[in-house]
Amino acid sequence: MYDLVILGAGPAGLAASAYATRKGIEFVTVAESLGGKGSERVAFPGPAEHRVVRPEQLLADFRRELEYLVERHRRGLARSVVPRERGLVITVETDDGSHEIEARSAVVATGTRLRRLGVPGELEYFGRGLGYSAVSYSHLLHGCDVVVHGDGRRSVDSALEVSRYARSVTVLLERVEGSRELYRNKLREASNVTMLDDCSIAGFDGDDFCRTVRLAYPSGELREIEADAFFVELQPEPNSEMVADLVELNEDGYIVVDLWNRTSAPGVFAAGDVTAAGFEQSLVAVGDGVKALISAYSHLNWGL
Amino acid sequence: MYDLVILGAGPAGLAASAYATRKGIEFVTVAESLGGKGSERVAFPGPAEHRVVRPEQLLADFRRELEYLVERHRRGLARSVVPRERGLVITVETDDGSHEIEARSAVVATGTRLRRLGVPGELEYFGRGLGYSAVSYSHLLHGCDVVVHGDGRRSVDSALEVSRYARSVTVLLERVEGSRELYRNKLREASNVTMLDDCSIAGFDGDDFCRTVRLAYPSGELREIEADAFFVELQPEPNSEMVADLVELNEDGYIVVDLWNRTSAPGVFAAGDVTAAGFEQSLVAVGDGVKALISAYSHLNWGL
Repeated sequence: MYDLVILGAGPAGLAASAYATRKGIEFVTVAESLGGKGSERVAFPGPAEHRVVRPEQLLADFRRELEYLVERHRRGLARSVVPRERGLVITVETDDGSHEIEARSAVVATGTRLRRLGVPGELEYFGRGLGYSAVSYSHLLHGCDVVVHGDGRRSVDSALEVSRYARSVTVLLERVEGSRELYRNKLREASNVTMLDDCSIAGFDGDDFCRTVRLAYPSGELREIEADAFFVELQPEPNSEMVADLVELNEDGYIVVDLWNRTSAPGVFAAGDVTAAGFEQSLVAVGDGVKALISAYSHLNWGL
Repeated sequence: MYDLVILGAGPAGLAASAYATRKGIEFVTVAESLGGKGSERVAFPGPAEHRVVRPEQLLADFRRELEYLVERHRRGLARSVVPRERGLVITVETDDGSHEIEARSAVVATGTRLRRLGVPGELEYFGRGLGYSAVSYSHLLHGCDVVVHGDGRRSVDSALEVSRYARSVTVLLERVEGSRELYRNKLREASNVTMLDDCSIAGFDGDDFCRTVRLAYPSGELREIEADAFFVELQPEPNSEMVADLVELNEDGYIVVDLWNRTSAPGVFAAGDVTAAGFEQSLVAVGDGVKALISAYSHLNWGL
């Protein structure tokens, strides 16, 4: 029986693992890969180098340390977390079947998964001119024409921030009917932003990089827009299914936590984008991963 | 009028400043110095190098950026934050007198101050064999004799963690009468930890480094203990006086925040050790500094 299982190895899970190592806790980290979404990079045409994400070095250090401690991580996907006697049983799917791990406590840091449009070219160009989260790349987009597709306030903020660098920003918003005018007024603050209505994305085309987006109108009309960078930033979905019967989730499926990253279940902690207080920022996930670990440590040592 | 004033330039204030820069907010950071408590280092006798604190590089990058942006920081101490019309007036004490800064919003990241014993040798040896926070230096203390003076559970955790590396740990706890037996039982888990009772610290002596602590007993008896490293880790005090009339504080004077680092006053956010959810960890303060900044940005842009 481990003292602690850490589910996920994105920024929150890696930070929790690093602090668990330092504190001498008997733990294991279960994840499909070490690094998480933050380690995915999107390339754009042109010579610009991506230097915006600051926590890279810190996360690389965390990842290397965990890679080195081979007995401290296991490749797999947690399917369920169930209380048993004075601990938890975690069912993990690995390459060679399903395994059970017993632990006295858990930190859930399984993050979110991107929601796809499901249109031609989307998967093909992802990472090559087509990305998620324009705001992470805004410095890179100096003088570029940028297309942002989103579904809420976050995308509007993102488009406005990118507009400070880009030559033009074209914004398509889906599922925002009630707020459409509010968003339109907000986007008018930037003279180089255009908001499109009444169309949906039919597909992406390009060569080595994504170069055009095809728009479909209700009339059946199709239109193509060329740009240097494309972003599909739909609200992602939390990977919280494995604890859905164990801890309180909010209406969108995110794990509810308190200021100490405790969930509603004793001994179960959560951090990062899978929580209702996720900010989609690596450094926030790191900080909350450390909080969750320290709270787990207090729970293990003092029963708090 | 600034959009935002950031009070403090420790890990939380520096992270908030870095993200404010990235987001193009009209802000100014007010602090006595750039770096905060996290930049203080304690040296111990012997050749060991201090390699435990991981966020050093990240914080150095943040600090350099803010240093470079000369119009974005001001040397001074915030004395009061008062609402006026649709913003805040911050009174700042600087080398050349008292100044007023107007801002639409504020992030308070003023941290805590260490509480001193007020005994001979304490200030003289601080940083030279005598430090605060043993746990930050535990890896350095391999094979050492260590003395930890504290006033609560944190010191007990700290002593236990240090005991994994140190040869011996001597613990003196003050103001823990109700919990003394609980702590004593906990400390028994480590065979190399000794807990002293009924004595107080009368002073520190040494040469280039602190070498001995003088203990005073109620009988008038004095005793000296030699060690390689000494820690006085009394619960620090929050620097929250400037907002005491503006936002809700908890019974110990820490600023109450929610999961988005909002205080009870609209437009006023707080992060780091000055908040009731401070963890005395640089990376937690960084994460919460980013949260507070993003919340301030939402407030400025959307009135949230």
